[in-house]
Amino acid sequence: MNHFQSNIFPMRKLVFPGAAEWIVVGGRDMFPTATRVFRAAGIRQIAVIGFGSQGHAHALNLRESLVGSGIVVKVGLPEESGSRQKARAAGFTEKDGTLGETFAVIAESDFVILLIPDSEQVRLYKKIFAALRLGAILGLAHGFLLGHLLSVGEYFPDNISVIGVCPKGVGTSVRLWYEQGRETNGAGIPCSIAVECDLGGALDVAIAWAIQLGAPLSSFTTLRKEFLSDLTGERAILLGAVWALAEMAYRRFIELGFSEEEAFNLAVESITGPISDRISRHGGLLGLYSGLPGSEQKIFARAYVSVYGPAKELIEDIYASVESGDEIREVVERGNQLREHPMERVDIGEMWAVGERVRQNRENFEKVIDPMVAGLYAGIMMAQVDVLHDHGHWWTEVCFESIIEAIKSLNPLMHAKGVGFMVHSCSPTAQLGAKKWGPRFMSSLWGDVLQDFSNNPESVLGSPLFQLFVGHPVHSSLATCLELVPKEDLYVG
Amino acid sequence: MNHFQSNIFPMRKLVFPGAAEWIVVGGRDMFPTATRVFRAAGIRQIAVIGFGSQGHAHALNLRESLVGSGIVVKVGLPEESGSRQKARAAGFTEKDGTLGETFAVIAESDFVILLIPDSEQVRLYKKIFAALRLGAILGLAHGFLLGHLLSVGEYFPDNISVIGVCPKGVGTSVRLWYEQGRETNGAGIPCSIAVECDLGGALDVAIAWAIQLGAPLSSFTTLRKEFLSDLTGERAILLGAVWALAEMAYRRFIELGFSEEEAFNLAVESITGPISDRISRHGGLLGLYSGLPGSEQKIFARAYVSVYGPAKELIEDIYASVESGDEIREVVERGNQLREHPMERVDIGEMWAVGERVRQNRENFEKVIDPMVAGLYAGIMMAQVDVLHDHGHWWTEVCFESIIEAIKSLNPLMHAKGVGFMVHSCSPTAQLGAKKWGPRFMSSLWGDVLQDFSNNPESVLGSPLFQLFVGHPVHSSLATCLELVPKEDLYVG
Repeated sequence: MNHFQSNIFPMRKLVFPGAAEWIVVGGRDMFPTATRVFRAAGIRQIAVIGFGSQGHAHALNLRESLVGSGIVVKVGLPEESGSRQKARAAGFTEKDGTLGETFAVIAESDFVILLIPDSEQVRLYKKIFAALRLGAILGLAHGFLLGHLLSVGEYFPDNISVIGVCPKGVGTSVRLWYEQGRETNGAGIPCSIAVECDLGGALDVAIAWAIQLGAPLSSFTTLRKEFLSDLTGERAILLGAVWALAEMAYRRFIELGFSEEEAFNLAVESITGPISDRISRHGGLLGLYSGLPGSEQKIFARAYVSVYGPAKELIEDIYASVESGDEIREVVERGNQLREHPMERVDIGEMWAVGERVRQNRENFEKVIDPMVAGLYAGIMMAQVDVLHDHGHWWTEVCFESIIEAIKSLNPLMHAKGVGFMVHSCSPTAQLGAKKWGPRFMSSLWGDVLQDFSNNPESVLGSPLFQLFVGHPVHSSLATCLELVPKEDLYVG
Repeated sequence: MNHFQSNIFPMRKLVFPGAAEWIVVGGRDMFPTATRVFRAAGIRQIAVIGFGSQGHAHALNLRESLVGSGIVVKVGLPEESGSRQKARAAGFTEKDGTLGETFAVIAESDFVILLIPDSEQVRLYKKIFAALRLGAILGLAHGFLLGHLLSVGEYFPDNISVIGVCPKGVGTSVRLWYEQGRETNGAGIPCSIAVECDLGGALDVAIAWAIQLGAPLSSFTTLRKEFLSDLTGERAILLGAVWALAEMAYRRFIELGFSEEEAFNLAVESITGPISDRISRHGGLLGLYSGLPGSEQKIFARAYVSVYGPAKELIEDIYASVESGDEIREVVERGNQLREHPMERVDIGEMWAVGERVRQNRENFEKVIDPMVAGLYAGIMMAQVDVLHDHGHWWTEVCFESIIEAIKSLNPLMHAKGVGFMVHSCSPTAQLGAKKWGPRFMSSLWGDVLQDFSNNPESVLGSPLFQLFVGHPVHSSLATCLELVPKEDLYVG
């Protein structure tokens, strides 16, 4: 249960089993209120540092939401940055004073939104902290920088406020949904909001930021919870584990005598297509299970029971490795090498070439859900749900980082463009994590899990472990969260 | 767990949570085996006594299955019976010796299938028992006669075998599905099989009967379990309670300001249409619940929690009243009066006239599931599931008598023809029971249940009572049973 309360913005109580969370309701009709909050906080200029996918979306959305307010949105980039041309094309120019050099812009702004890559944040944060005005507000879109500071025994300076607004989708959709929201009072991407350091009024500034970014609804988290769940999730069900499951299932179906195309359809397309769709639009994980014929429910249960334990152990290891700072230190170290030795692609096996062919002839393949694949996928997903919930993450974050981001954002992306595109579209932090942990999932799946699956009797359907799945409180929590997001996928290709 | 085993017929093990049941697999390819079993049991003539909906179906299906076997199927009817003309039209004639007087046919047959109304069975059983040959086999299509015998301290004579084959659908569909099964190796109506008295080989004769009747799959029960669950079910969710819920919900929606047509659509059409359809084809009761949007899941949970307790108490009362013999004695007594004073119809309120209009303009009404109605319906259904299961009924019977008969047979009938047609199509035993218990459900629903529903907070979604629903073993049991029945509704209008 969170206890965040704003006296300015309307809030809504979400009831989850055994808990409740307050969330913020956005919408275009709230833009004037948000503008007043910015003004009351003394904000005259907002800096958007970086003009990548998120930077672009934040800069354009905020500028549009603040039209006529007198508050300036200014983009900060290095003099030599290749993104300068993109920023100018979007109407941020040196000439009219809305595009400037990174540290100059930071020094002259009241509210600085830092949207440069994790590795750049780590490289530059001392200089950035030094450049910030006394009493300025630093805005982050996720918790990595805090994770790094903690891993090296440092912290934010004590003369600034630090807030987070973390969109639950890629930058492209943050912009696209905002544009569609012009007609619908602010359809947009939901965010999670965090207040890390508060010199006064920071919560309302964070909410105002989320609203002007277009978030129709925002939940709450802390920056620490955010980086723990984010890094854990991408190493597990979001990227690392789903990649491993796809490779394992493909090999398994080949072994069973299926053609390459059929194997790909059963192993990969089923996850990124009908399984994601069922979870997303037809009753969540419970709907995925209960919608199967009775005999297939038993196969699902056998797969679920065989994978849940090993997956939970692995995800606990991941969580511990993130919490200890090891994952972040590795990313920082490897990040330095990456400039010279680019990462190897993950989609180099033959199956991904097969996938390319299947995607191009999709109409020839039946949409099927293989119950073993569905049970394995659900088992890993639930293991992550339980790890995050056991560590005190709130239901909105558990659902978004373990389920909704997978089924509405990443899997549709993988469905459209393949696993390589999906993995390599993500941050180096995510890619490195997936490449480290994916093979561990693979060896577990291909070994003990598959063996257990073959040995498990149908009667595991009635086992306590599987009954915990069926009666799990995440099912109604997910349904509540799914109502908060647009019905369409958050990824728009 | 049942322990029935045939050494002749193929059996299949169904795995349910915490239990298993053996069932028999039928199909037209098994007809010759079934014929050999009849012959080995010394059966040269099968009597079908009665030519109503079930008598007609049994006589025609058995005659067709036994073509060329030399085993005669002969219909027995009183000399003055109005059904004689129907029998003759179906090819059972006095001239070729396949139609005769009831007791004469009984006396000359090896296997006598008794398909006359319950009240007639009660009036005539002494004469029937006396007419049966020594060592004959008496076949029943449900357990009412045993219930009556127990209620008056009597039993079957000890020189006959008594078996039951109870089709899980009305006689019309027993015949129609058999006809469709000609092309598909025996699509037909599933049955439950009981062996009450066994002078030797009775189990295999019962299985042979079910197979030649067209049952693609048959589960097992006892005649006692059968009449207990049958009479309880029709007094509760199948007829009495659904009628009460429809009346209560209609009045409630009128009170809330809906038009008569809208109220009928929300209160009645939603149950007989989309709610039944979801349970039947989209994941059972769990699919009904998990397919609702999150906010409606909370309304569903509030309704479920408010109705489950009172409904369970009422259904326990019904079960006790059936078990004590009271219900059966009442039916027998009232049955005698009925010949002079026909039963009042149940569909005399204004709402059923509205229903007639709605059915005729169905395309103008949106198919909607009202979450309160769905939660109340599911709560009563689950109360019945729990009462039957607590009393030791096996999962196949629990699922058929509490859920499948409702969603695949009776509700579709009510959807097509209205509540009056549904109730009055059923046996007088069922009608009398529904008319007795319906008003008790109504007063409970309209009183405490509605009050509790209004007072229950959304957080009951996380209550232990509701978590028992979500994690209930009936969900996977139902999915297993639903795979045994034809995908289409068992009622064909």
